[in-house]
Amino acid sequence: MGVEIERKFLPATDGWRQQGQPVLIRQGYLSSHPERVVRVRIYGDEAFMTIKSKAVGVTRGEWEYPLPLDDAQEFLDRLCEQPIIEKYRRRIDHAGFTWEVDEFLGVNAGLVVAEIELPSERQAFEKPEWVGVEVTDDARYLNSNLIRHPFSSW
Amino acid sequence: MGVEIERKFLPATDGWRQQGQPVLIRQGYLSSHPERVVRVRIYGDEAFMTIKSKAVGVTRGEWEYPLPLDDAQEFLDRLCEQPIIEKYRRRIDHAGFTWEVDEFLGVNAGLVVAEIELPSERQAFEKPEWVGVEVTDDARYLNSNLIRHPFSSW
Repeated sequence: MGVEIERKFLPATDGWRQQGQPVLIRQGYLSSHPERVVRVRIYGDEAFMTIKSKAVGVTRGEWEYPLPLDDAQEFLDRLCEQPIIEKYRRRIDHAGFTWEVDEFLGVNAGLVVAEIELPSERQAFEKPEWVGVEVTDDARYLNSNLIRHPFSSW
Repeated sequence: MGVEIERKFLPATDGWRQQGQPVLIRQGYLSSHPERVVRVRIYGDEAFMTIKSKAVGVTRGEWEYPLPLDDAQEFLDRLCEQPIIEKYRRRIDHAGFTWEVDEFLGVNAGLVVAEIELPSERQAFEKPEWVGVEVTDDARYLNSNLIRHPFSSW
């Protein structure tokens, strides 16, 4: 098991847009239950299944396994809860950490979220100038909730 | 994807009990939703994750991946819907096919189900003399339903 400590922010400006190389992510859920999330993700031309346990604060258990691309495609198209999530991800290095900026498409178009993964809950880090308010504790921004309550319906 | 065609029967007698070598199975569900079952199973000292799509008649899509034993243990103990299923499985060859006889434990103790997997829906096969009535279409016998409505509550 890995333990994932993520903090999530909204962008303050468009400063992220010219940085990093956007990669298309398509992801869906075989389970979006908060105690046992099962996520299928195609990232570029690779596919993964990720299991996530319930979050305690900003920490949650996470297990990831590679998946045959064809199987992942079929899960997304035929089995996963609909709609699936589609977004462009940019990875932007800043002051020793990597920020992942997700620009959502489809029913979540208009939403952009910047995330940083940290080695411990108390780890200090420096925000790039384009990073705005923190939304780590706002469950609406969980990808598993964005399928039920997409950004376009807020 | 594999396609699984299974027919399920109750035993007519105890004739199965002296045959085959019982192997302990512990299994649980990260999703028991009929359209996207995600099953974690420890079979002897091996572990697997199995995805199943909705059944159409006796046919359903099935995909299986090996899983690290430690991860499977943690999923069963901490993440899966409770209670998990525990049963002894015996594999018994008869007239060119293999029967799997599951003897349930715990909250499902007393329940025994015999299953045969067939290459096509119309495949003919011979029943051993200890095999009784068919219950393929009775959803109560789905393992994913036996966690919500265990045999002891019928």
